[in-house]
Amino acid sequence: MPELAYLNGEIRPISETFVPIEDRGYQFGDAVYEFIASYNGKLFCMKEHLDRLQHSMEGLSFPELDRAFIESAIHDLFKKAGIARAGIYIQISRGVAPRDHAWPKEIKEQITMTIKKVMEIPSKLREDGVDIITVMDERWSNCDIKTVQILPNAMAKQKAKTLGAYDAIFVSKEGVVREGSSSNFFIIKDDRLITHPLTKNILPGITRKIVLDLATETDLETREEFFSKADLFSAQEAFLTGTVTEILGIKSIDDKQIGKGIPGKITQKLYAALREKAE
Amino acid sequence: MPELAYLNGEIRPISETFVPIEDRGYQFGDAVYEFIASYNGKLFCMKEHLDRLQHSMEGLSFPELDRAFIESAIHDLFKKAGIARAGIYIQISRGVAPRDHAWPKEIKEQITMTIKKVMEIPSKLREDGVDIITVMDERWSNCDIKTVQILPNAMAKQKAKTLGAYDAIFVSKEGVVREGSSSNFFIIKDDRLITHPLTKNILPGITRKIVLDLATETDLETREEFFSKADLFSAQEAFLTGTVTEILGIKSIDDKQIGKGIPGKITQKLYAALREKAE
Repeated sequence: MPELAYLNGEIRPISETFVPIEDRGYQFGDAVYEFIASYNGKLFCMKEHLDRLQHSMEGLSFPELDRAFIESAIHDLFKKAGIARAGIYIQISRGVAPRDHAWPKEIKEQITMTIKKVMEIPSKLREDGVDIITVMDERWSNCDIKTVQILPNAMAKQKAKTLGAYDAIFVSKEGVVREGSSSNFFIIKDDRLITHPLTKNILPGITRKIVLDLATETDLETREEFFSKADLFSAQEAFLTGTVTEILGIKSIDDKQIGKGIPGKITQKLYAALREKAE
Repeated sequence: MPELAYLNGEIRPISETFVPIEDRGYQFGDAVYEFIASYNGKLFCMKEHLDRLQHSMEGLSFPELDRAFIESAIHDLFKKAGIARAGIYIQISRGVAPRDHAWPKEIKEQITMTIKKVMEIPSKLREDGVDIITVMDERWSNCDIKTVQILPNAMAKQKAKTLGAYDAIFVSKEGVVREGSSSNFFIIKDDRLITHPLTKNILPGITRKIVLDLATETDLETREEFFSKADLFSAQEAFLTGTVTEILGIKSIDDKQIGKGIPGKITQKLYAALREKAE
């Protein structure tokens, strides 16, 4: 089960795969990405990830995505690596050009990928729930586009790690709770599932959408609406969602216990339903 | 006069210089940069650029900058290229690590540089002034740190180019005029030189500082204060400043003429003083 990289058609070891220093992804953060996971040798939600990749590329005026080409490249890499529970990271940058803020007409996107075994979240963390912190949302205004402009996300995650927490969630200057550093965020309050609506300030998460659908299927009332930091501490349950995160229950936020201090019943039920769907 | 690149101690052609795909600069925009110009074979404002590089690295909790090391590397590259009027681009990323938002304890910064002949702004543009546009400032909240989180800057510059303009200036949601896509911005109004104060929303430009000092030396009153989009159109003069931009007069903003529609007397005087200082 080798970990491999892909670069414009070639597959080789990750440590032997390089990009030119004048790749705009390197000098301008001018690149989009996706992360797709597999379960039992099958890629999960491929269509949804490619839809979002296309949306991201449109948002940055990239050339149109050749879906058949990228889909076939992903399958090639997946087959070659032969990892049943894999995480495929796909990055498309605008390409390589002499450094200039504006880009030349003739520029060819640079496609890189890596495939690795998914780093599963330890089952003890899933059972006990995680501690998270809140941080000020200082990101740019286009968080619905999945670009590599994610230094603030990296800084937030690092801050959480330094404080002994698992992750951080962004809260706007006005007190609106947005999402995690690499995940969406849900609370359960008055037996309703609540998450931030799809605006430019959060990522349109694929797991987020699945969770909303699963909730509806099980007659759980869902609301996509703004909620504040104050709402966090009166929530019955809270969890993060994401491709690797899946559904991860939260036990405390900023050192204040959430609900009973362990992942609640609704969180557990939704997680079981998600795993069933994925597998 | 060859154009060259530097990578962790080695100097070689730019087109033969590569970074690993798991460089955090590539996958997270986790990198800072500087651009230093030379005049007549002498690097201009080296100390100021290194001060700012250090400030940027501190802002992102990078390890402390080894100033003697980087200074010597810059001089080596400059000497080897032998370009009298050179532009040196220096980028320091947090380093290479398996992709994860948080970074490992043991990680070594990656230093890349390029040296090229400065692309001088055509003298006709300097004489006639340039047309610029305004765009909404959708950047993150730490624009005082010179990172590669500059996709919105690239998009703004590209938008200007598409509309036949030279550059774009960012205006906040509240109507405050910030700076250009890769330059600071000044207006002259009631015979006073006005520019945005040093906050987290603009870059502490080195040319910006020089211009404020030169103005004071020539008894021109200066103000670092917020001004609005409305103030633009009643300005006597307006100009951009930057390492390559130097001082560049503006003839129109959003298709509305500024002053007499050519770079004004104060702009010209400051530009002459800057060139004299640099050369």
